[in-house]
Amino acid sequence: MITRKGRYSFIFSDKPQILGYAAVAGPKESEGPLGKKFDKIYYDPKAGLDTWEEAESQLQKEALSIALSKSKLTAEDVDFVFSGDLLNQCISSSFGLKAYSIPYLGQYGACSTMAQTLIMGAIAHASGAARLCACVTSSHFCSAERQYRFPLEYGGQRTPTAQWTVTGSGCCILGTKKGNHPRICGATVGRITDLGVTDANNMGAAMAPAAASTILDFFADTGTSPQDFDRIYTGDLGFVGSKLLYDLTEKAGLNIRDKHRDCGLLIYDREVQDVHAGGSGCGCAASVLCSHILPGLENGRFKNALFIATGALMSPTSCQQGQTIPSIAHLVHISTDK
Amino acid sequence: MITRKGRYSFIFSDKPQILGYAAVAGPKESEGPLGKKFDKIYYDPKAGLDTWEEAESQLQKEALSIALSKSKLTAEDVDFVFSGDLLNQCISSSFGLKAYSIPYLGQYGACSTMAQTLIMGAIAHASGAARLCACVTSSHFCSAERQYRFPLEYGGQRTPTAQWTVTGSGCCILGTKKGNHPRICGATVGRITDLGVTDANNMGAAMAPAAASTILDFFADTGTSPQDFDRIYTGDLGFVGSKLLYDLTEKAGLNIRDKHRDCGLLIYDREVQDVHAGGSGCGCAASVLCSHILPGLENGRFKNALFIATGALMSPTSCQQGQTIPSIAHLVHISTDK
Repeated sequence: MITRKGRYSFIFSDKPQILGYAAVAGPKESEGPLGKKFDKIYYDPKAGLDTWEEAESQLQKEALSIALSKSKLTAEDVDFVFSGDLLNQCISSSFGLKAYSIPYLGQYGACSTMAQTLIMGAIAHASGAARLCACVTSSHFCSAERQYRFPLEYGGQRTPTAQWTVTGSGCCILGTKKGNHPRICGATVGRITDLGVTDANNMGAAMAPAAASTILDFFADTGTSPQDFDRIYTGDLGFVGSKLLYDLTEKAGLNIRDKHRDCGLLIYDREVQDVHAGGSGCGCAASVLCSHILPGLENGRFKNALFIATGALMSPTSCQQGQTIPSIAHLVHISTDK
Repeated sequence: MITRKGRYSFIFSDKPQILGYAAVAGPKESEGPLGKKFDKIYYDPKAGLDTWEEAESQLQKEALSIALSKSKLTAEDVDFVFSGDLLNQCISSSFGLKAYSIPYLGQYGACSTMAQTLIMGAIAHASGAARLCACVTSSHFCSAERQYRFPLEYGGQRTPTAQWTVTGSGCCILGTKKGNHPRICGATVGRITDLGVTDANNMGAAMAPAAASTILDFFADTGTSPQDFDRIYTGDLGFVGSKLLYDLTEKAGLNIRDKHRDCGLLIYDREVQDVHAGGSGCGCAASVLCSHILPGLENGRFKNALFIATGALMSPTSCQQGQTIPSIAHLVHISTDK
């Protein structure tokens, strides 16, 4: 069962375990610091298919396939798949997963979706509605770029605050099994935050307030502090958003600098790779979670991690209509403590 | 707690109740057979705002506001809001609900989203993760038409199989309270079905196989038959899709004609209103649920209803790339039996 803590958080008594996981990535990601940690790399941005959208679907399909095989499970064992992506109508998910014939529940939290799928999967498992859940998200630089910004052929200049959408996917299988698997201990569901940022080339600034709000809610609700955790990972704030997150949390009297890492800064080498403020996208937090954070927990490099994926909830239409960029962040506490 | 039944279904031991609900609609819907049953009608398609997208957000905002006030609750009482719509990146939901500051979990199941939000809300409530959940979806003829088809100014001809996107929203508040509220007894989460339909002007045909599959799964899993229910409501199959649903279920030896009603056929008078094969959209199933189905249960007109919302999981991009239209249907069993 699940017990609510404070206003926005809750903890699991029988902590759902992450039985298996996989990360799949593209060529640029293979050249970054985590390049050797991915389960599979597609060096062709179209993954041998006709379109970038089909390639992105392929990333999800493959991430789920590898996660199942690493968990020694098949699609028939899985009761629900929670999935989402950044494309209009979430087509990477629906086209990528349709062949599996697993009961499907599409999630949309922009780049926060990986944390959201873990929360939904853990709740479904704890409630008894599902014995095993799969949680998967993806993004693709080329499909995102042409949908959100410009045709790639145009060669548009990017601002220094812009982030590079990760071509990648990550998948976790949740359930209960003997063994020292990472466990989902608790979570905080975020509220939509909007401080009035309108620059669609500065997602980090739009999302930092949502990350700060959710992190502060979690510590207040659970009576914990950054010292109680080994790592605090954000999804894709990048260089600009991470600095703003420090400003906002320090204003509230909380110093997280030592513990904080951002998936968007871990996946690329900003000195060498032309990614401006860092990585972003649903596939950023997901592929770093499944190639770096979960292995770190399993190897005992650290025991207690907070995973806070952040999402910007605008669309090209809302931006063209002059609207601000509402954002959200969901937090998941993952630990190898029993 | 929740107990699984068969391969795809589950039932609730403490059945979450629908404590309050509201339906909001537009001008064309006000002229239909349910016109007098909506809680609020916006006669201006822009709801006094600058854009159709803002108007659609307003529908959700108002539906939630009325549902809360009918439940004698405030936004502060609600632990999670599950919400979704048809617009790119679900902006009707994020912009419509951001002012409430309720922890937000975006859902995407195209026109099946209302059933999906009820399933997620009921699971979250049963697990203990949330005491009260709000479930809300919307659609808007004008915002959907220009996104999925043509600019309205173009005056494109519609095929006889085309459906009319409902301008409307519906919201339910789930929780536990004394009183004879409709209860969520069980559910079946749908699998993505794709029989190869490629005509984006014939959504009914694309979605009927998903509806048939989920309905057959539910009866097989629970050992029930159409005779055990007073009504079987589908979301927006329309005239064409409903006929195909009968063909498909009858092939499997199941006759549902007497019990079946389609929200897309209930909301408009096809003889008088120019809606071709009927209504569609996230707001179709949602506004009919909250103006017609739930009042029917509360008034004792019937006691046991199945609510199966259906969704087509394509996007304009996937259609332009020549892809088929994958579909899904989620089923919720709602009853006033304790």
